[in-house]
Amino acid sequence: MPTNTEDAEYRLYYWPMIQGRGEFVRLVLEDAGAAYTDVARLPEEEGGGVPSLVAFMQRDDLGTPVYAPPILQHGELYLSQTPAICAYLGERHGLAPDGDAKWRARHLQHTITDFVMEAHDTHHPIANSLHYEDQQAEALKRTAAFRSERLTKYFGYFERTLAQNTDAGGEWLVGAGCSHADLSLFQVVAGLDYAFPRTMAALRDDYPGIFALHDRVGRRPNIAGYLASERRIPFNELGIFRRYPELDAPA
Amino acid sequence: MPTNTEDAEYRLYYWPMIQGRGEFVRLVLEDAGAAYTDVARLPEEEGGGVPSLVAFMQRDDLGTPVYAPPILQHGELYLSQTPAICAYLGERHGLAPDGDAKWRARHLQHTITDFVMEAHDTHHPIANSLHYEDQQAEALKRTAAFRSERLTKYFGYFERTLAQNTDAGGEWLVGAGCSHADLSLFQVVAGLDYAFPRTMAALRDDYPGIFALHDRVGRRPNIAGYLASERRIPFNELGIFRRYPELDAPA
Repeated sequence: MPTNTEDAEYRLYYWPMIQGRGEFVRLVLEDAGAAYTDVARLPEEEGGGVPSLVAFMQRDDLGTPVYAPPILQHGELYLSQTPAICAYLGERHGLAPDGDAKWRARHLQHTITDFVMEAHDTHHPIANSLHYEDQQAEALKRTAAFRSERLTKYFGYFERTLAQNTDAGGEWLVGAGCSHADLSLFQVVAGLDYAFPRTMAALRDDYPGIFALHDRVGRRPNIAGYLASERRIPFNELGIFRRYPELDAPA
Repeated sequence: MPTNTEDAEYRLYYWPMIQGRGEFVRLVLEDAGAAYTDVARLPEEEGGGVPSLVAFMQRDDLGTPVYAPPILQHGELYLSQTPAICAYLGERHGLAPDGDAKWRARHLQHTITDFVMEAHDTHHPIANSLHYEDQQAEALKRTAAFRSERLTKYFGYFERTLAQNTDAGGEWLVGAGCSHADLSLFQVVAGLDYAFPRTMAALRDDYPGIFALHDRVGRRPNIAGYLASERRIPFNELGIFRRYPELDAPA
């Protein structure tokens, strides 16, 4: 579904130069085939660009101000915080299990959120306000621990989750079909593949379910179309997942 | 409401020796006057203790395994991840606004979750698996940035949130009354007061709304009763908020 249609049901506010946390929202919108405007990616003269995002962040008429992007506008409703937005959209668009199992999809989405923050902090273990180069020594230590302990802990958990989901024969994390949690885990694997290619190559045989899930999501028609489009911003060294070769496993 | 009643509506599974993330759940249960069993605080011979928690974590019959405590059991439903549990309980027990505003309370709860993770990482910036003493140099740097940049950013945000909530005259974060988000912000302020007393004393005049909210929550009858009871585990150096004087502002 092309972004930025005139009559889009949803408006997404997120930084226009990175995938970042907004990408988890974009993947749900894209898989759902939902019409959305990616506001800050419009030209400034059409009300887009970073100024549109900054202006939104400064709004004082929402009842509760937003803390950080992404923000999703759906009619009169404004949603903030990635896991809440992903669950909201997934539950509206058939990308969540029914009944109590929806709580398990939400729980997985929260767990992925924590995983993403840890992945981010590998290159920024001291302060967001410092450049990577000014915390590189600490980043080397934190990333070594992330690769050897945290990444494997999370992957072990998700592999176990897939194995226990007999509703889908181990193909999806929860329920009988693809959910917002699967789309988000796809993005984490894609991001880690970009950031740590040597580490990830060495893990492939140990976590076959996770890598198969990544490939399965990537083959979904709407996702495949999205990934091949200009709407998919390439990974880069401004986002969450950054390729700093010195942080990856030794060659 | 005393814990560990025979016919408790809820069962909470959390580490018995710390407040930790479980405390955010306990505060909602306590303010609501809900009957709950704090399972791992029962004696081992009554099915409690750490073994009860470990056994729960290893269960493979839940459809989706849990990643980490806290876990709340309510009848047949198992909930995991602190912000999801707090919102679930808050919305059931009149500790959340009605209508679309409930999304804003959830959003605040997510923001507090991020804040808590950052507060934790001040003393563990490199790896959870390392002792504090083995990452103290990095902790000094991360905490300096946390105190000067992050704490003030979050406090500025919550102060602004209080000021904009005209439904409650600035007394509560969202809606007309106390919500799960207010109870959680109380806990963050209490924890930071414990961990960084000098830093917090210096901030008091700059963020009067937040400190007043903390005091207001502490005076709620059920909360005051809880805080004075043996059910409130004291802060200690195993939890999220730890008093390492060298990490606080200089005397």
